[in-house]
Amino acid sequence: MKFLSDNAASVHPEVWDAMRAADAPDSPYDGDGLSASLDEKMSSLFGRESKCLWVATGTAANCLALATMVQPHGAVVCHREAHIEMDEGGAPGFYLHGAKLLLAEGEGAKIDRGSVLDVIDPIRDDVHQVQPHAISITQASEYGRSYRPEEVAGLRALADERGLGLHMDGARFANAAAFLDLPAGEVAGQVDALSFGFVKNGGMSAEAIVFFDPALADVALYRRKRAGHLQSKGRYLAAQIHAMLDGDLWLSNGRAANAAAAEIATACGERLMHPVEANELFVRCTAAEREALRAKGFEFYDWGADAARFVTAWNTREEDARALAKAIADL
Amino acid sequence: MKFLSDNAASVHPEVWDAMRAADAPDSPYDGDGLSASLDEKMSSLFGRESKCLWVATGTAANCLALATMVQPHGAVVCHREAHIEMDEGGAPGFYLHGAKLLLAEGEGAKIDRGSVLDVIDPIRDDVHQVQPHAISITQASEYGRSYRPEEVAGLRALADERGLGLHMDGARFANAAAFLDLPAGEVAGQVDALSFGFVKNGGMSAEAIVFFDPALADVALYRRKRAGHLQSKGRYLAAQIHAMLDGDLWLSNGRAANAAAAEIATACGERLMHPVEANELFVRCTAAEREALRAKGFEFYDWGADAARFVTAWNTREEDARALAKAIADL
Amino acid sequence: MKFLSDNAASVHPEVWDAMRAADAPDSPYDGDGLSASLDEKMSSLFGRESKCLWVATGTAANCLALATMVQPHGAVVCHREAHIEMDEGGAPGFYLHGAKLLLAEGEGAKIDRGSVLDVIDPIRDDVHQVQPHAISITQASEYGRSYRPEEVAGLRALADERGLGLHMDGARFANAAAFLDLPAGEVAGQVDALSFGFVKNGGMSAEAIVFFDPALADVALYRRKRAGHLQSKGRYLAAQIHAMLDGDLWLSNGRAANAAAAEIATACGERLMHPVEANELFVRCTAAEREALRAKGFEFYDWGADAARFVTAWNTREEDARALAKAIADL
Amino acid sequence: MKFLSDNAASVHPEVWDAMRAADAPDSPYDGDGLSASLDEKMSSLFGRESKCLWVATGTAANCLALATMVQPHGAVVCHREAHIEMDEGGAPGFYLHGAKLLLAEGEGAKIDRGSVLDVIDPIRDDVHQVQPHAISITQASEYGRSYRPEEVAGLRALADERGLGLHMDGARFANAAAFLDLPAGEVAGQVDALSFGFVKNGGMSAEAIVFFDPALADVALYRRKRAGHLQSKGRYLAAQIHAMLDGDLWLSNGRAANAAAAEIATACGERLMHPVEANELFVRCTAAEREALRAKGFEFYDWGADAARFVTAWNTREEDARALAKAIADL
Repeated sequence: MKFLSDNAASVHPEVWDAMRAADAPDSPYDGDGLSASLDEKMSSLFGRESKCLWVATGTAANCLALATMVQPHGAVVCHREAHIEMDEGGAPGFYLHGAKLLLAEGEGAKIDRGSVLDVIDPIRDDVHQVQPHAISITQASEYGRSYRPEEVAGLRALADERGLGLHMDGARFANAAAFLDLPAGEVAGQVDALSFGFVKNGGMSAEAIVFFDPALADVALYRRKRAGHLQSKGRYLAAQIHAMLDGDLWLSNGRAANAAAAEIATACGERLMHPVEANELFVRCTAAEREALRAKGFEFYDWGADAARFVTAWNTREEDARALAKAIADL
Repeated sequence: MKFLSDNAASVHPEVWDAMRAADAPDSPYDGDGLSASLDEKMSSLFGRESKCLWVATGTAANCLALATMVQPHGAVVCHREAHIEMDEGGAPGFYLHGAKLLLAEGEGAKIDRGSVLDVIDPIRDDVHQVQPHAISITQASEYGRSYRPEEVAGLRALADERGLGLHMDGARFANAAAFLDLPAGEVAGQVDALSFGFVKNGGMSAEAIVFFDPALADVALYRRKRAGHLQSKGRYLAAQIHAMLDGDLWLSNGRAANAAAAEIATACGERLMHPVEANELFVRCTAAEREALRAKGFEFYDWGADAARFVTAWNTREEDARALAKAIADL
Repeated sequence: MKFLSDNAASVHPEVWDAMRAADAPDSPYDGDGLSASLDEKMSSLFGRESKCLWVATGTAANCLALATMVQPHGAVVCHREAHIEMDEGGAPGFYLHGAKLLLAEGEGAKIDRGSVLDVIDPIRDDVHQVQPHAISITQASEYGRSYRPEEVAGLRALADERGLGLHMDGARFANAAAFLDLPAGEVAGQVDALSFGFVKNGGMSAEAIVFFDPALADVALYRRKRAGHLQSKGRYLAAQIHAMLDGDLWLSNGRAANAAAAEIATACGERLMHPVEANELFVRCTAAEREALRAKGFEFYDWGADAARFVTAWNTREEDARALAKAIADL
Repeated sequence: MKFLSDNAASVHPEVWDAMRAADAPDSPYDGDGLSASLDEKMSSLFGRESKCLWVATGTAANCLALATMVQPHGAVVCHREAHIEMDEGGAPGFYLHGAKLLLAEGEGAKIDRGSVLDVIDPIRDDVHQVQPHAISITQASEYGRSYRPEEVAGLRALADERGLGLHMDGARFANAAAFLDLPAGEVAGQVDALSFGFVKNGGMSAEAIVFFDPALADVALYRRKRAGHLQSKGRYLAAQIHAMLDGDLWLSNGRAANAAAAEIATACGERLMHPVEANELFVRCTAAEREALRAKGFEFYDWGADAARFVTAWNTREEDARALAKAIADL
């Protein structure tokens, strides 16, 4: 029973179907009909004018989005444990041509006005120190916490005060939306660009960068090609995104994953290191306890010496979640 | 009847099958069994130790390969009409951190010892001029010409004399191999790295970078991640490559495309601008003639004012090729 | 008798004096009084609002100027033999983060509307090809030719039509101004930024980047520091520029160098490969003739197999120029 | 009485003399006799084969040195308050093409085996996390502390174990050497490259990068040109370095600055935040006390809300140092 990550789960049948349906030849790159109709569908979903570019990975999505907001001599403020800092192999340094990441603190891998100011206020306003150009937040966060609309609004206000861009890494946007039970536009808030993730949510190889400022999208089109991310059979990526948006599959998949996580959470009690607001659980347990769980067939990652991380996915079986919950309760 | 390009053709059924068969969860990124077994299969195909990395596009393959051979202060010698110069949106400048492309001449978009020396011999051996670090050739070339083994060997010898790396852009490697009717190892020759293309040959979204020097592959692993090209569900890319290699599907697809091109070529006579040694035809014809062909339902690109380009694919129907041949003959 | 280049000539006594006079401590970097007063002096010289940054080399000046106009995914159009292409060790690729140089043709290393259009008109307006962002011209050119005001105006008009920046490499701006006998503002025309050279004209280590658009200067301030070109004792660079501007020393030095070149030119007749419009002479002569000249004590560079290049400087002695003229006449 | 910084002090008379003596034309760039003889002089000083490149700033020296050791996908471990992190405007990101700085802790801005391991041991050995390629230390440190030979040796051993380069930022190397009273070779230890600073020590515009591995120097020669730091009248920089090395002027200047700092330190007692091991003093004092000192004519920087930084220079007058000591004692 796999609770390692949602990032290698199977592909949803509707996604497969949409890909197969896209098999007839069409114009290459993003000139096909499926790619062309994404803007409209995203605009409708988010309730404001949106431009949508597909790419194959969240790393590419995050970095291409940020590259439209941050000059090479600037910096991005993000959480110390943000994915762009911890797990993208230095991709921001590559895509932003040497721009820095400035690391802010915050409970649950979330940042706020105060923690951002702690980082940027000490920066002297001179050429000797790298100046911030953008803020990046993760929705849901790397510890499975969701930003409330007023929290995003607070960071938007700060970004506006300081002339900064605002980016949201939504690798698990669906899980945040399912948890918050709010329209996508409110979950995203007034960010300038959203990395809207599908791969962790039943897709195969398509993530969307959604720009709410068309001028940024114009730059990103060139940067995507330049990064080797403009696939010639792009229609297969567009098809995945359409499948996800149609009938709100993205949301029902997110809800399914969250429900499994919630089921497990009920058994964790005091063991939980973070409230479960998405599909990840960080659970205090000893090495012996982890061994016991693994002996029962559960696969998961250690989280340091004294904890484990469990991730559910769109296709986590109810009985597996219940079994894990019971096993944890029995520890 | 589409003769626009092979780059948007449908995906081969065996590729689809292999992807579906890969749907069960496995380790993420390139930790899955399918990815892990590519090295061995490539080593067997090329007859020497090979390391294989999948990426989604030929642009990424070319640039990641070159990035292992070229320092940021160096240069790559390639043909003036090489894909890396003409059609990759400046990706080499991005991946190589500002290294230059030095443009050599040559019939049929092929370069040779002489044309490379014409470019590099005038370069003063001082720090004021950018020094060459590698040579890149395209097999088959941008005009559908194939390098003979002795031609590749000649460039290898030159590269060795001058301490340069040698890269082969094999976006249409299968077509060259089918034309030359030689083992893959002889078609590739002693290059340091090969971009082995599958997308134009019935694949969906997987190209292989094959390194014949393991030290280069070690660098490329980091650079691939850093470029956002390490997909978490990499098994679906590995599956495509396996499908292509198993039973030499790559070769039979290449032969099919070439056969269609050869059929058309028989009707072109003096109109042919280049011998047909792969699956591309560059055909002299007037605007009126092109209009006549299009009126009959043929889709293709103009090639300047006085010619057309026709590209066949693995699934070009024989009757379509014959129809086009007849239509050209009737002009 | 040295006619190798003006780039290693002695420093003018007034420059030395100004540097010595700057020896008293002042604020570091560009916070000193001398640095602070450069803007005003340049504004007065050019007759429009100017921002002036000092740097140590022409390469840094050119590349920092261009970096304010060209995004990493764009390109600069310049002459095929422009200094930025031929002699800056790939610095544009470094400073522009991989942007390309697009090489235009033109008599005397000068470009014009037609030759620029020859380069940029064939570029497809899509993301697969690198788009031009700026034009760079050299005043006086690499062959010692000077752009007339209407020529610069023609390029300005083209730049405006196409939304491009316009940069002037003025490593020998003084020589062009001396030849054209026009105010500095007319010699520069309506470029966005000028690399105003002093090192070849009697300075030691100070070149000015003059921005006529303050927003570009704001970016350049950060980029200069980031490139390690913000010297802490910047007052010694500012002092050099002040010495050059005061009493129009820059212009009289340029006139002196040009006069020596003109003297030599009178003896060259048909041997001249280019009209002499600055302080460089490109003179047809055989290897034997060059040997004969060297035997008489003249130092200069070969220019290919059949020519020599002679460069005069602010301090070329009249008798040396006359001696060289005579020696050439005697060949 | 200026105690702001040593970075804007006057130029030493012997440096002026050497520059004037270099005024006769010689070969441009680093082809002149003065530049050519630096390697030998540095080899003699450090007691091992050394290659010396001049540049204009410490930022350029540090970043060019590191660029020879760190690939774009790697990282440099340095102290959290290292100059390369805090005060170089992001230059490492530029010169290293996006490589990261990994920030270690340590008393007095010094790092050691333990604090480096605290940073690098948690890095997973996979492509998702940026791997360290080099360590950089500052001698004397940003808080005026000097590394003892055994401390440098400890870091060298660690670097060897982990396959890392080792760089020393010696902007105030002279002050460390004067304090330690050891030969230069022991003060530098077995680092791979040293940024040997002269500008803060009586020079005008010349810093040396000393490579103890010739292969690194070969790369740096290209990178220096590419960064626009190869001045055509390089002999004036070489002359400064010769003046500094001849008769060990660098050392006597360092001793003079240290002596002044020691004089002041005697009056500081408990106020000292760090032992004074070079020419910088960090002194606890209230805003009112700082005001009192300024009222007496002392210029210096605040260091946060509760301290002041005083820096002495090669030419700090004894009476000024005594006066400051007395003023502090009188507080």
